[in-house]
Amino acid sequence: MSGSEAEQTIPATAAKADQGNAQVLPTPTDPIAVAQALIRHPSVCPDPGPAQQMLAAMLEKLGFEVWHLPYGEGPERTPNFFARLGKSDPHICFAGHTDVVPPGAEAAWAHPPYAAEIEDGILYGRGACDMKGGIAAFVAAVARFTGKGHQVGSISFLITGDEEGPATYGTKKVLEWMAQEGQIPDYCVVGEPTNPAAMGDMVKIGRRGSLNAHIVVEGVQGHVAYPHRADNPVHRLLTILAALQAQPLDNGSDWFEPSSLQVTSVDVGNSSTNVIPAQAEARLNIRFNDLHTGEGLTGWLRTVCQQHAPNVRVVVKISGESFLTAPGAATDALVKAIEHVTQRTPKLDTGGGTSDARFIAQYCPVSEFGLVGASIHKVDEQTSVADLETLTQIYETFLEGVMA
Amino acid sequence: MSGSEAEQTIPATAAKADQGNAQVLPTPTDPIAVAQALIRHPSVCPDPGPAQQMLAAMLEKLGFEVWHLPYGEGPERTPNFFARLGKSDPHICFAGHTDVVPPGAEAAWAHPPYAAEIEDGILYGRGACDMKGGIAAFVAAVARFTGKGHQVGSISFLITGDEEGPATYGTKKVLEWMAQEGQIPDYCVVGEPTNPAAMGDMVKIGRRGSLNAHIVVEGVQGHVAYPHRADNPVHRLLTILAALQAQPLDNGSDWFEPSSLQVTSVDVGNSSTNVIPAQAEARLNIRFNDLHTGEGLTGWLRTVCQQHAPNVRVVVKISGESFLTAPGAATDALVKAIEHVTQRTPKLDTGGGTSDARFIAQYCPVSEFGLVGASIHKVDEQTSVADLETLTQIYETFLEGVMA
Repeated sequence: MSGSEAEQTIPATAAKADQGNAQVLPTPTDPIAVAQALIRHPSVCPDPGPAQQMLAAMLEKLGFEVWHLPYGEGPERTPNFFARLGKSDPHICFAGHTDVVPPGAEAAWAHPPYAAEIEDGILYGRGACDMKGGIAAFVAAVARFTGKGHQVGSISFLITGDEEGPATYGTKKVLEWMAQEGQIPDYCVVGEPTNPAAMGDMVKIGRRGSLNAHIVVEGVQGHVAYPHRADNPVHRLLTILAALQAQPLDNGSDWFEPSSLQVTSVDVGNSSTNVIPAQAEARLNIRFNDLHTGEGLTGWLRTVCQQHAPNVRVVVKISGESFLTAPGAATDALVKAIEHVTQRTPKLDTGGGTSDARFIAQYCPVSEFGLVGASIHKVDEQTSVADLETLTQIYETFLEGVMA
Repeated sequence: MSGSEAEQTIPATAAKADQGNAQVLPTPTDPIAVAQALIRHPSVCPDPGPAQQMLAAMLEKLGFEVWHLPYGEGPERTPNFFARLGKSDPHICFAGHTDVVPPGAEAAWAHPPYAAEIEDGILYGRGACDMKGGIAAFVAAVARFTGKGHQVGSISFLITGDEEGPATYGTKKVLEWMAQEGQIPDYCVVGEPTNPAAMGDMVKIGRRGSLNAHIVVEGVQGHVAYPHRADNPVHRLLTILAALQAQPLDNGSDWFEPSSLQVTSVDVGNSSTNVIPAQAEARLNIRFNDLHTGEGLTGWLRTVCQQHAPNVRVVVKISGESFLTAPGAATDALVKAIEHVTQRTPKLDTGGGTSDARFIAQYCPVSEFGLVGASIHKVDEQTSVADLETLTQIYETFLEGVMA
């Protein structure tokens, strides 16, 4: 098995050799070997560097030009790089992150989080599917693709060391640099684990936006027997919340489910049954599709709130705007590659949470496809070695299709 | 001034003489003297006894037959009495309480709470207006009325020592005894301080009922990004509260303002912006008029709650039913007496909180009229000596009118 070979290629002590210049690099066409090598460089967010340095070295060996783009200072210092092979169009970019979430109590792992052990065809380790495995598959796909002598277009990597954290000095900053340098690709694939259960389940072609609001209504306290002498802020708040929910935000769009507004908390804290309280507050979250913008929804929220409580306080935080890459040639090529390799037709989805794709979507079309995500952020994170090979074949088939 | 005379009649050390059998009783036709004597017997709820014993002794001296009716055991033991003069109809009853609320920090009083000092025509002391002053005025009215040789009908006193507390062993129990003994009057006047600002402002001919409800809705917790996998209890609760407020409970009735529903608290306590919580709860109070009953409203609440949350928990506590004594001959006599003495027409009102009249209304027509209530339950509780005389004249004129 190539997995066993990889274990011989990269000894378990590789992490300790990081300080030296001499680095034994895994065979680039072998996604299992590359994934194991990446997992064995612990890189809890923000990536301290070695995992990314090894990846950059591999790409340089494959002929890529590499621009190291660290941003941030002190503990926020984030290693990132952009690497490109070729100068002509089409320019296809693979985006990913080398940082991982913490392993938690390592004793709880049946397989040590940085050992990259393979047992019964399963590779275990922090980052196995989120997303060192995805990176390894793309590296292997590129190595196989270029190894066959393909010369059309160019391939790039946008790699960040801070996707799992605040993401302030990562993908966003690299994209700004890419825009300045004329390096914005024609299409980008993010290697996040998009498949809920099996390879071929799902391609993400967009994501909903997310907005949190905190609404505080002040009233005038008083005795319940004399409501005309008081101003019940609970009633004003209930009227606001009813008005916000009176109509659906929309009925969905071509590629999105209807937007959803969820009131997550209402709090007054008044234990006196005969007192009208002085203040009431609510918190809500809106997951919104491409029919809305965070700014538009914020304006609507403020208007409705002020209609029913002139001196209301509304604090809004927009976590991300919605985005969509409407199906086109590149996404078609990705779907065809998935169908070819897995014999399954993936669902084109826009649900779930957020990823760095929200930054990339501001510059170019982007979709997301990677491994099976069931074990992400959990103890004994894992991927099957078969899935790594499948994903490598899908990425290679995609490159063949989109570069044809 | 009769006030000064009263101070000479009842020395400030009267309270210390309680243990002795010999009791110096105030001149019964002088409401100021009687009020001072009552105030000087401290009687924080439940009345320990001496204030009531003095009152009973005064009535016996006026020819009343007195039935002492203590109820409750140990610290709950409550002295009460029923006293009646005459056996024929019409039977007019005066209801009142000798207990008072605690004085709080006595040092905060400019005039000691049990000294019954008079300064610039104002009598200070705990119970001055709520309602030892009211009792004193009725005693004086009866003394003057009977002193003139009136022989028609009968007059009674229903006196409790627990109106300011739980009221479990007070008026309610005495009424049960009165019903058993055939002592239910034709009409009852409660001497609570009903005037907001000046004598002649207001007669209470009924009171609204009061009901508290606690509504708890259970849902299914989940991530806000996937609301279809959760069941948001906040939304169910908001729908319930909107339905409860969708229509006014009523538009008022002949003698009542519209009923009022006030949501006093809504509580979820969810600090996570991305989590749909598992539980939400609300508290509300309904002040309801004679178009409703507590039982009817409870049924309506349960039905609405269950429509929108099948497994809702609704806990209802009915503090009191609404009641009304529609204007008739006796109330007319009271209003005419007020007009005659004050040259003002009182408002017939059913607003405000609750009093022992809610118990009496279950047996006979009842209205409430007494002193000015602005200082009740406060430091330096007070009444003007002029108001005490005015109220005495009103009560006497009322007795003359209703006994004519």
